[in-house]
Amino acid sequence: MTYGVGLKMDRGLIFMSDTRTNAGLDNIASFGKMRTWATEGERVIVLLSAGNLATAQAVGSLINERKGEFMALTSMFQAARFIGETIKEVIKMNADAPKGGGSFLASFILGGQIKGEEPRLYYIYPEGNFIESTPDTPYFQIGEHKYGKPILVRAYDAAMTFEDAVKLLLVSFDSTLKSNLSVGLPLDLQTYVGDSFKQGLQKRIDRNDPYYLTISEGWGEALKRAFASLPAFEG
Amino acid sequence: MTYGVGLKMDRGLIFMSDTRTNAGLDNIASFGKMRTWATEGERVIVLLSAGNLATAQAVGSLINERKGEFMALTSMFQAARFIGETIKEVIKMNADAPKGGGSFLASFILGGQIKGEEPRLYYIYPEGNFIESTPDTPYFQIGEHKYGKPILVRAYDAAMTFEDAVKLLLVSFDSTLKSNLSVGLPLDLQTYVGDSFKQGLQKRIDRNDPYYLTISEGWGEALKRAFASLPAFEG
Repeated sequence: MTYGVGLKMDRGLIFMSDTRTNAGLDNIASFGKMRTWATEGERVIVLLSAGNLATAQAVGSLINERKGEFMALTSMFQAARFIGETIKEVIKMNADAPKGGGSFLASFILGGQIKGEEPRLYYIYPEGNFIESTPDTPYFQIGEHKYGKPILVRAYDAAMTFEDAVKLLLVSFDSTLKSNLSVGLPLDLQTYVGDSFKQGLQKRIDRNDPYYLTISEGWGEALKRAFASLPAFEG
Repeated sequence: MTYGVGLKMDRGLIFMSDTRTNAGLDNIASFGKMRTWATEGERVIVLLSAGNLATAQAVGSLINERKGEFMALTSMFQAARFIGETIKEVIKMNADAPKGGGSFLASFILGGQIKGEEPRLYYIYPEGNFIESTPDTPYFQIGEHKYGKPILVRAYDAAMTFEDAVKLLLVSFDSTLKSNLSVGLPLDLQTYVGDSFKQGLQKRIDRNDPYYLTISEGWGEALKRAFASLPAFEG
């Protein structure tokens, strides 16, 4: 499985994704599921994938082969459409494949900014169609989204600083890592400051990362204190 | 869907379950999914169900029809086996049914105490076989278990008071209610004090329950404070 999140913030966009892939519990490996394309001063585009790794990699490779065309598109809507068409093409490539136990499907989070537009964030379905985030739903999750959702629901605030938003993502990822073995470290982080038109911080967070350890250990204690602060039930 | 939890505590057993059933988003209803059988001074047995409502109700009805036999069993292991056999019988009843979109499967949490034994807690699979809780895994969840799991993982402690354990369950249920519409209030609570051999507190918690409201509102604030107490990321 996978866990990936894209957050639309007042100040820009933040993305995080795990790197574990598995074909059964006894066959795991580490693959990046985050791709970034940037032309400084003009556009930054980030793509996260979840689902079939071959499909996700093929989509990324085809976009790289057509980078000239992709990086000339004039809106993020057109970029989402381009990726949607590429997904359909990859699925068609495998339409006559022998059927194993798995599925070829993959879903994507796409975010970024192209000069002339605001930053935009999309969720692209395995069918290639897509939805855009709105103030009502300003973030998207892909893959194993359930364990990490309650903290996003409670603590996300579009006005947050990037520093707090990265903390929020690490708490959400830590809750997921603790419950689903098919989501695994290291994590990939990518930030994009709105209207900067250049890649923000790109960082790989591994199991020895001091800040990750601070959050992972600190969150357990903080949760226990939060829990203790509420009144006990009186039967 | 459903969300149900059985906790084995040092002091006894606690069960909570929601009451929503649905056949599509446009067809919801409220049905209890918790059944208790008790002979004061001798045994208390609690059964939670998740999955196909007709299967769960049929299992409950057959046990009621065979109550003499069921309430004469000499161990919780035998009670789990009895329920497992009943599940298999119900599934067989429907083996030749026309196939619609749904599944007849249901899973169960069984807990209680029969004189001569400690309190025991079981998870019964849709196939009718079952596992018993151990100190390593002292609680079971059925149905929509993911949203409410992180707080159980972090805050459960077998030595907790019942008052704290009910608080823990309400936090876990509230996280689930906020994310999955097919889990709904009211909630059913049943406690069993170890070696009491009588039913403990049985309570239905609805959306106006003052304690539920205190937890639901207070938890959002407590989580935000917990989150704020951790250091922000320094990019």
